Amino acid sequence: MPTALIILAAGQGTRMQSDRPKVLHEVAGAPLITHAMAAGAALAPDHTVIVAGHGADAVREAVHEIDPDVTVVVQQEQLGTAHAVAQARAALDGFTGDAIVLYGDTPFIRPETLAAMAEARARHAVVVLGFEPADPGGYGRLVMAGGALDRIVEFKDATPEEQAIGLCNSGVIAANCALLFQLIDAVGNDNAAGEYYLTDIVGLARARGLSAGVVVCDEAETLGVNSRADLARAEAAFQSRARAEALENGVTLIAPETVFFAHDTVIGRDALIEPNVIFGPGVTVESGAHIRAFSHLEGAHVSRGAVVGPFARLRPGAELSEDVRVGNFVEVKNALVAEGAKINHLSYIGDATVGAEANIGAGTVTCNYDGVFKHHTEIGARAFIGSDTMLVAPVRIGEGAMTASGSVITSNVPDGALALGRARQDNKPGLAAKLLDRLRAEKARRKGN
Amino acid sequence: MPTALIILAAGQGTRMQSDRPKVLHEVAGAPLITHAMAAGAALAPDHTVIVAGHGADAVREAVHEIDPDVTVVVQQEQLGTAHAVAQARAALDGFTGDAIVLYGDTPFIRPETLAAMAEARARHAVVVLGFEPADPGGYGRLVMAGGALDRIVEFKDATPEEQAIGLCNSGVIAANCALLFQLIDAVGNDNAAGEYYLTDIVGLARARGLSAGVVVCDEAETLGVNSRADLARAEAAFQSRARAEALENGVTLIAPETVFFAHDTVIGRDALIEPNVIFGPGVTVESGAHIRAFSHLEGAHVSRGAVVGPFARLRPGAELSEDVRVGNFVEVKNALVAEGAKINHLSYIGDATVGAEANIGAGTVTCNYDGVFKHHTEIGARAFIGSDTMLVAPVRIGEGAMTASGSVITSNVPDGALALGRARQDNKPGLAAKLLDRLRAEKARRKGN
Amino acid sequence: MPTALIILAAGQGTRMQSDRPKVLHEVAGAPLITHAMAAGAALAPDHTVIVAGHGADAVREAVHEIDPDVTVVVQQEQLGTAHAVAQARAALDGFTGDAIVLYGDTPFIRPETLAAMAEARARHAVVVLGFEPADPGGYGRLVMAGGALDRIVEFKDATPEEQAIGLCNSGVIAANCALLFQLIDAVGNDNAAGEYYLTDIVGLARARGLSAGVVVCDEAETLGVNSRADLARAEAAFQSRARAEALENGVTLIAPETVFFAHDTVIGRDALIEPNVIFGPGVTVESGAHIRAFSHLEGAHVSRGAVVGPFARLRPGAELSEDVRVGNFVEVKNALVAEGAKINHLSYIGDATVGAEANIGAGTVTCNYDGVFKHHTEIGARAFIGSDTMLVAPVRIGEGAMTASGSVITSNVPDGALALGRARQDNKPGLAAKLLDRLRAEKARRKGN
Repeated sequence: MPTALIILAAGQGTRMQSDRPKVLHEVAGAPLITHAMAAGAALAPDHTVIVAGHGADAVREAVHEIDPDVTVVVQQEQLGTAHAVAQARAALDGFTGDAIVLYGDTPFIRPETLAAMAEARARHAVVVLGFEPADPGGYGRLVMAGGALDRIVEFKDATPEEQAIGLCNSGVIAANCALLFQLIDAVGNDNAAGEYYLTDIVGLARARGLSAGVVVCDEAETLGVNSRADLARAEAAFQSRARAEALENGVTLIAPETVFFAHDTVIGRDALIEPNVIFGPGVTVESGAHIRAFSHLEGAHVSRGAVVGPFARLRPGAELSEDVRVGNFVEVKNALVAEGAKINHLSYIGDATVGAEANIGAGTVTCNYDGVFKHHTEIGARAFIGSDTMLVAPVRIGEGAMTASGSVITSNVPDGALALGRARQDNKPGLAAKLLDRLRAEKARRKGN
Repeated sequence: MPTALIILAAGQGTRMQSDRPKVLHEVAGAPLITHAMAAGAALAPDHTVIVAGHGADAVREAVHEIDPDVTVVVQQEQLGTAHAVAQARAALDGFTGDAIVLYGDTPFIRPETLAAMAEARARHAVVVLGFEPADPGGYGRLVMAGGALDRIVEFKDATPEEQAIGLCNSGVIAANCALLFQLIDAVGNDNAAGEYYLTDIVGLARARGLSAGVVVCDEAETLGVNSRADLARAEAAFQSRARAEALENGVTLIAPETVFFAHDTVIGRDALIEPNVIFGPGVTVESGAHIRAFSHLEGAHVSRGAVVGPFARLRPGAELSEDVRVGNFVEVKNALVAEGAKINHLSYIGDATVGAEANIGAGTVTCNYDGVFKHHTEIGARAFIGSDTMLVAPVRIGEGAMTASGSVITSNVPDGALALGRARQDNKPGLAAKLLDRLRAEKARRKGN
Repeated sequence: MPTALIILAAGQGTRMQSDRPKVLHEVAGAPLITHAMAAGAALAPDHTVIVAGHGADAVREAVHEIDPDVTVVVQQEQLGTAHAVAQARAALDGFTGDAIVLYGDTPFIRPETLAAMAEARARHAVVVLGFEPADPGGYGRLVMAGGALDRIVEFKDATPEEQAIGLCNSGVIAANCALLFQLIDAVGNDNAAGEYYLTDIVGLARARGLSAGVVVCDEAETLGVNSRADLARAEAAFQSRARAEALENGVTLIAPETVFFAHDTVIGRDALIEPNVIFGPGVTVESGAHIRAFSHLEGAHVSRGAVVGPFARLRPGAELSEDVRVGNFVEVKNALVAEGAKINHLSYIGDATVGAEANIGAGTVTCNYDGVFKHHTEIGARAFIGSDTMLVAPVRIGEGAMTASGSVITSNVPDGALALGRARQDNKPGLAAKLLDRLRAEKARRKGN
């Protein structure tokens, strides 16, 4: 069945205390709304309509960065969930398939759950996603009858028997798209808040003699974000699952609670991740790589046998081949580092290629920026870059070439050549003692005054 | 009512296993006793008397650093809490107001709680601070009668009915100052420990027909520190509250449990704090600033739009203006960095001013110390400091000036000038290969021997 | 009684999802099997026999690194624990003492527990180690009668009364060595798995009229590792104990849950350890030392009064004397740093000695590697190493000598001398402005095209 996603993302999120639209706050390195989009993507939807409101321009820009085909419509006034869904009507005009309504602030609905809802549509005109929370509290209750959903009652309107029901309403709903909009037309706002509630379509469908069904998901899937504390809880829930999966897949995490993954982190079997490692988006670590403590990786690839850190930072475009070593206080950005090369200490390698088995001395910097443009540095295989070498790009160091410690390299070095760019040492006997004596005398003099 | 604080801080804290006086161990970057002082300060006390004992000199020095007007008296022998309070008598001679007795190892009493005690003094001659612990265990019980405090019974002397009482004695007490000392005179030491207990003044007051009352606080406020484990628990309690407050105020903490605040940290709304960030004392971060992972800040100010870290260290006097960037492996100390300046990699900027939009290359060092004196570096607006530039202070780099990579700058650079201080590069063809061959041959020779 | 340890270490550990033998996965910086060896070492065993299987070569190499006298035998096929123990027969031929069977994947049995088992052997032919888990689940139950062990029943074969028994079988067992092998000969494999179970020797001993006894240990001692999640739990259990012990011994851990110890870390009383510190193997920190946040130490010694970090890395052979300071983004390896020396910023000091009160400027590097050999640097007492000095080893800086910022030092500097090795500064008026104008024009031109 062709499917359209409608994702509600208009709320201000007042309790977030933020100038940023709520659905753009991030979990696992990605905005909340992209998690909902990713879950929905498993249904291969024909249309995705985002109903934005507060900060609609920022939301549009963010979602189009991920998927330019998404339609973003704006709900000018926030008059309830049914009213929000109604904003998608024009965008889905003539669409004859199903629609599933998701929420931009509910990032953890699993694709399997949505697939189950799509499947349940074969048996019911309207399908509601339910869950059985540990504490049902004030959630709306799903009243079942004969295996189908009879009605949804708000907690405050529920009889004691209904309050005892453990199955609750998540708000996620699926129906034929045309039917959905018909039912929404009939929704009223005769309630305390004066809002149009999407939930009401179940009663309206039942009143027409249509069947409603329920798919039940884990409570964890329905975790919604309404405050920074919720956001932190969502992050924690994500991390907890990601850590358990990594362990399950044969990754060693010495202290799992100190390792942070992004939504798309991929770590191979028998990789060893020490405590206090942070993975930003776009990182893959191959089997048997070793990420040492206090390392920070974003947009990087670490191959088998490579060792990173402690105190290493890999930025986007860092591509470490097998058996590479990137050591402490080293930053690598947009650089391909070939097999067995070593960058062990206090260096910045950016916009560069480093050849196989090259050795980069402590304090090396690729001077890639001239104030306006960025330039490339090429270091040949087996090159030996002396400590504190400045590689003023664009520049090429030949294969097997060396640079002397403290050299500033501004022009290419041929293969096998030694480049020097430093002054001769000159010792001034006794001068250190004399200088210090003078300074100390000056200090004494100042104190005396 | 004029008020005097008496803070008991004489205990050795044997279980701390420490040479340092217990009340000088720190929570949230400040000694325990200063937390008690800060709570008491809300009463705007006329006098504050600290009763020190073990390590009295160190305690005096520490508290005088915070408030030179505090009187520190010494309890030579530790003969009980009543005896300790008695040491404050001379310091408060003639004072006709109220006295509140606090404890230097109990950092979390809230100002509101002390205000409530002061207010309750209108109705009772003696006011005791009570709490209702989850596990009352062996605490002294507060026996109430007709809304007033009838007596305090030690747990071991309590009847089964009294043991069932959930309201316990915190030891914090308020009374008219003169009365307090009169009652203390009557306290005896006829008990197993042979000590004079402050608690006994309640019974003595009641025997004189005076009324005693109770103010009830949260158990968390009464957390006392008697061991390093207690100290860690107190720190954890502080951090937990500070993190919750930050979230409540609209700060994003991706992983709240990994962020450590000091007692005086101020973070603006919509600031984003990544995991593993430590705030030492004296830090303010404005709205919308972004503190990246693995950053360490003390005595620093970060303005709106600035980005710090990962792996950045801001030390006292680091003042970052709007949109400044301080990147990885960078230390900034006692330096004003103007709008939009960038210090992205591996640099030490100390005792300096950095002009707006200046760009500081990787490996830059302000050489501020000559072995005796510290000197200042001034970098002009829009200056471009090449990588690995040594700025030998005192020195000034003009506006829009540049320094070439690897230069040592010992004299001022005029506005718009380019300063070079480096040797020419010289390539020796084939020499790298020759050198390495020779070294490898030597290695082989040594192995052969 | 002379004792032999038999440690079973043949299992594949399928659930580890690893190419590495299970017992070589590490907890607290040491392979699992070495923890079992260390516990057993308290019995001063005459023989230690490791029964390896999967990855036997790697296991042999690892255990011989720790104790070359250990015998490693190989169980070619994994036919059960009794079969595994039988592989030790030849290695213990003629040994008349006791044998204790331990497990290479169970790292936390305490030496005291093993001593209690050895002692219980005086009263029983076979001694089994039991524990009383919070949830006995499917563990084998120890059925006692008259203070002795009557039999072990597998959970699935247990009557309801037996299932209600809380005392469970850990698998650790002690017996006279000759008797052990006799009993093992009688063990059959007539069970669902077709394996020979060591547990069966209890029934066989009882059938011969021999007495069996039980020693009970804490559940925590029996924690076994079968998956990466178990491994993480074992690490967490170790760390939790190590942190509590440190606090008990008078160490301040501001945030204990963020500090990671190795199996052999020694920290003195009144040391202060800030959050996020990692101790690899071989570290001792003396009383009153201060390890600041984000520090990483391995194989290092930190003396009284020294301050390390934040963001410091001490590697093996780093020996810091009293009152030394190692600051941010500094790496020290194989270097003796004498009293009061300071290495405060962005430096690499490797293969070196640093004299008392020497001051090492920011960006200093000991260039210890020439591509083939490592060389030594010697820095004299009270020497002042200017920022960004390259010390090209082998080289000696004399006492009280200075190097100018940005110098490359390739030959020795006499005591009290000043060494310079840098080019003169040259200012080109107006050139910076001209260069930037040209670059910006070029940028505009490219955009125009």
